Amino acid sequence: MPADPRTAVATVCLSGALEDKLAAAATAGFGGVEIFEPDLVASPMSPGEIRLRCADLGLSIDLYQPFRDFDSTDDDRLAASYRRAEHKFGVMRALGTDTVLVCSSVAPDAVADPDRLAGQLHGLAERAADHGLRLAYEALAWGRHVDTWEASWDVVRRADHPALGLCLDSFHVLSRTPSHTTEVDGIADVPGDKIFFLQLADAPVLAMDVLQWSRHHRLFPGQGGFDLPRFLAAVLRAGYGGPLSLEVFNDVFRQADPVRTAADGHRSLLALAEATAAGGPGRGVGVDPVGGPAPDVAGTAFVEIATSGDEPALDDTLTALGFARTGRHLTKPVDRWEQGRARILVNRSGEHATGIGALAVESADPPAAARRAARLGAPALSRSRGPAEADLPAVAAPDGTALFFCRPGTDAEWTGDFRATGETAEGIGVSAVDHVGLAQPFDHFDEATLFYRAVLGLQPGGVGEFAAPFGLVRSRALADPARRVRLALTVSLLRRGEWAPGVPEPQYVALAVDDVVVAARAARDAGAPLLAVPDNYYDDLAARVDLPPDRLAAYRELGVLHEQGPDGAYRQVCTEVLAGRLFLALVERVGGEDGYGWADTPVRMAAHRRRRLARRRLAPA
Amino acid sequence: MPADPRTAVATVCLSGALEDKLAAAATAGFGGVEIFEPDLVASPMSPGEIRLRCADLGLSIDLYQPFRDFDSTDDDRLAASYRRAEHKFGVMRALGTDTVLVCSSVAPDAVADPDRLAGQLHGLAERAADHGLRLAYEALAWGRHVDTWEASWDVVRRADHPALGLCLDSFHVLSRTPSHTTEVDGIADVPGDKIFFLQLADAPVLAMDVLQWSRHHRLFPGQGGFDLPRFLAAVLRAGYGGPLSLEVFNDVFRQADPVRTAADGHRSLLALAEATAAGGPGRGVGVDPVGGPAPDVAGTAFVEIATSGDEPALDDTLTALGFARTGRHLTKPVDRWEQGRARILVNRSGEHATGIGALAVESADPPAAARRAARLGAPALSRSRGPAEADLPAVAAPDGTALFFCRPGTDAEWTGDFRATGETAEGIGVSAVDHVGLAQPFDHFDEATLFYRAVLGLQPGGVGEFAAPFGLVRSRALADPARRVRLALTVSLLRRGEWAPGVPEPQYVALAVDDVVVAARAARDAGAPLLAVPDNYYDDLAARVDLPPDRLAAYRELGVLHEQGPDGAYRQVCTEVLAGRLFLALVERVGGEDGYGWADTPVRMAAHRRRRLARRRLAPA
Repeated sequence: MPADPRTAVATVCLSGALEDKLAAAATAGFGGVEIFEPDLVASPMSPGEIRLRCADLGLSIDLYQPFRDFDSTDDDRLAASYRRAEHKFGVMRALGTDTVLVCSSVAPDAVADPDRLAGQLHGLAERAADHGLRLAYEALAWGRHVDTWEASWDVVRRADHPALGLCLDSFHVLSRTPSHTTEVDGIADVPGDKIFFLQLADAPVLAMDVLQWSRHHRLFPGQGGFDLPRFLAAVLRAGYGGPLSLEVFNDVFRQADPVRTAADGHRSLLALAEATAAGGPGRGVGVDPVGGPAPDVAGTAFVEIATSGDEPALDDTLTALGFARTGRHLTKPVDRWEQGRARILVNRSGEHATGIGALAVESADPPAAARRAARLGAPALSRSRGPAEADLPAVAAPDGTALFFCRPGTDAEWTGDFRATGETAEGIGVSAVDHVGLAQPFDHFDEATLFYRAVLGLQPGGVGEFAAPFGLVRSRALADPARRVRLALTVSLLRRGEWAPGVPEPQYVALAVDDVVVAARAARDAGAPLLAVPDNYYDDLAARVDLPPDRLAAYRELGVLHEQGPDGAYRQVCTEVLAGRLFLALVERVGGEDGYGWADTPVRMAAHRRRRLARRRLAPA
Repeated sequence: MPADPRTAVATVCLSGALEDKLAAAATAGFGGVEIFEPDLVASPMSPGEIRLRCADLGLSIDLYQPFRDFDSTDDDRLAASYRRAEHKFGVMRALGTDTVLVCSSVAPDAVADPDRLAGQLHGLAERAADHGLRLAYEALAWGRHVDTWEASWDVVRRADHPALGLCLDSFHVLSRTPSHTTEVDGIADVPGDKIFFLQLADAPVLAMDVLQWSRHHRLFPGQGGFDLPRFLAAVLRAGYGGPLSLEVFNDVFRQADPVRTAADGHRSLLALAEATAAGGPGRGVGVDPVGGPAPDVAGTAFVEIATSGDEPALDDTLTALGFARTGRHLTKPVDRWEQGRARILVNRSGEHATGIGALAVESADPPAAARRAARLGAPALSRSRGPAEADLPAVAAPDGTALFFCRPGTDAEWTGDFRATGETAEGIGVSAVDHVGLAQPFDHFDEATLFYRAVLGLQPGGVGEFAAPFGLVRSRALADPARRVRLALTVSLLRRGEWAPGVPEPQYVALAVDDVVVAARAARDAGAPLLAVPDNYYDDLAARVDLPPDRLAAYRELGVLHEQGPDGAYRQVCTEVLAGRLFLALVERVGGEDGYGWADTPVRMAAHRRRRLARRRLAPA
């Protein structure tokens, strides 16, 4: 069993009172915490009690933070800073921690002259050393004079005191140098014993004030756009031997269940350590934290639709879409439907509203994939959750969907659980599952990105946004490099309220077809409940895209949504929402189009919402 | 009765399907709408049906928008633009609208040469004129070549076609020139008949990418930081005679009840017209839309606490805080409590959880203030909602709090409804109501700012943010210039979820005292349930602020929160949350301190939350 790297998390990453945060950090498997001062100040536990609580939980206190605006050109203010520091040194001794984060000053009286600044920090380090403590000096990206890691290192070198070293924070470094990686690589030349602490955070690449970006939009490693493996590799090459610690200010994490957030954060560090190790020799953290490479996913083995006992519309729709019921489970109320390589299980054993219950991916070594998922903190699911008797390993994705691993091909372990019906169907041209669309719970969108990235090795695309009728929706697709497994995740940009209910936003299964018009016509003729698309859409489409009249007429007749890309097109037909929260789609990709038809999603959503809205209007006020 | 200016609203401002938006606009009193193309595209109503629907609702269709990326250096793309335009001209004729918004292009093939661009727009104007239509050309702040109103006017002048004029959008103008008002004043020199359309939006002053700023954070006039009266005055001086139309992209409004949002928007236009008229002669819109100046508020007449039948803690707490029950209502279960100029009514006639039911402000002419509020669309409340028999005019604030107007002084109309008890109390030094703290519903924070600004003439302060234990909280205070009436509004930065429940966030009444230590000690000795503040807070306070030891000891003993300002201090003591959602606070302002103690709010919230959290932990999972 590989060992974990030493990990820590700043209490500011997590929601709740200090006791909630500490408990969540321990549950997630962190070895230590950074105590964020406002969390301590608001706590009724004394520093000594916090020390004991952490010890009980098996947590070290790796850092006390932050100490702000220390240096000053004003002697009175400097004296006040020293006085303030003495108070904090007392708190640290009671906490039993030896390192305090000192941020570069943002105050008008901050010292500009590096030698004078170094002198003041030397004085503070001297006092810290008297208490057996040390200072980790950090350049805030918006510091008044010291705003790069190079500037902070220059000051630390000048001060030349054994109790003064650097704190490196990936956000402050990478937000200033997103495209200048040489400066990041230069960290490797800093003596490792002068890097006292390392804070890790990712972030989406945004064009905004860096202070606001930092305070609201940080993410855990692997959830954003920063090259953290390169950053971490440079820090490790320098010889840093301390913990990998998360410091993430995120508006959503501040409100979400801290146990979930902590698990997400811990997973992010393991995945980062793995990605860093994968970057080349000498880049690892000395251990293999995840226990093997991401599975080479070969395709979607099946999608399981969970539904309640009797829902004839679903069977009728599958039939109309050309699927044949090829198998019945030997012991459970589960049917297997097939067309081409697309396999859908309909599981009637639950009491659920109709929705996607499970997703099975094919990989050559399912047990290894499952072990890896477990190492990444994915909750294992017991076999009884499974659709089949075969011992398919399964874990729970952040939205509760079960994720199964199984061998590729028709002889996979799960197929023997079904008795063949002998039923066949001509089909309408469905060749495979193109992708699965999963509307995510508000608190877990970024967690889901990291989960599928780390557990399945899928690569996330960029984050998109579109204006749905009841509010903005954020979207992100993930796929393996060969595009054999695709997922499309969506979430409301803001948690919905009473006017714009967001739950349950429908999920969907997109089925690949070669010709959407042919397939949709066959489905329609067989009675599939295709979604009606407004005429206005086709008038607008005709204005935007030069389509042959007969093609446009077919689109209009069948409700085809056509998104034109630069080199190809994404064409889809959707069914109405079936009972519950599910619809099915037929998807044709023209010219290698790699998108998901998101530009048309507002039209699709409006059409799907129309019935709900009509119901609301009829309801008594 | 003064007439309203002509008003319109873009459908993109409002949530829902197109039919919801049109109904909401009509209900709010708008005269017209801009049809935002994606709303039409997603609608099952044909353009002709939309025309009829609008006519039924009494709405004119003042604009069709937007037509994007028209001009091109590529002849094929230009030809496609012309083809696209012909389609849209057909839609406009079916809609029965004569003006289309043409945005400056953001495309790589946008035309840079102003004469060539003018030539292409002249060509488009010629075709529009053939259909009896006209083009309103707008400079997007992020346009590729045309990104200021001056550049758009230069092109329109060069094109010199009667069917081509300007669309001026306050966001695009003021986001580029927040501090360069000369350029705004220059709009007055544009011939009025060349300004075809006017779009109005406010915004908070933010340092971020202008495109993101525009698409997510626009606000209705009076809710943000732009000088819209000056902008509108310049447009009116130019001779513009069309409607005042709102175009606001706002993440919250996109999800909120469109009827509420539309009412808020309509109010914003009336208040803007009034503020513009108040700016000086020649600046008005030719009418007085609001019917009189904002009331000169003289103080808080009373705060009414609504509570259920029997809540002894409230009476006991008022008594311990030095209040005397000076009156009992003649016919209703309402008591009057007094101390100094602070008056609190306790109304036990409802079934409510304890909270602030009403706020009464003193003004010299209550009926005039109420008429003004009604003109601003504030929902009038019937007399039966009132605490008293006297005919106090009242309206509902956005969070449902009743807002009463009454004459100043002890002989005010409402005081006669109470039978004097003869009870008196020495008091603990409370002189008046300092302010009322109202936690706002998520969807209505900006609406509340505008409401109190427009209806009471209060001036909003800046927006602040603080990190509470369960998420970020946004805050905004409003006060009259003489600081006789103050309100402190707060809201969660994100709508809360299950982990961090946001409702009911407590409300509070802050009572002014001369010496918070003296008052708090008296209250504590009389049994008031003062909120315990952690020792850690005082250790941190001692580190930050140089306080005499005996003062610090008194703070610690009594739970005083002390926020040091540059010139003074804000000192407060809070009670525990009384049954329901209310606490009381004693507030001392030192040195004219104008703040609200927000830096200490996370500590206060953590202390108030502790009991709730303890309850949750004890509850079965």
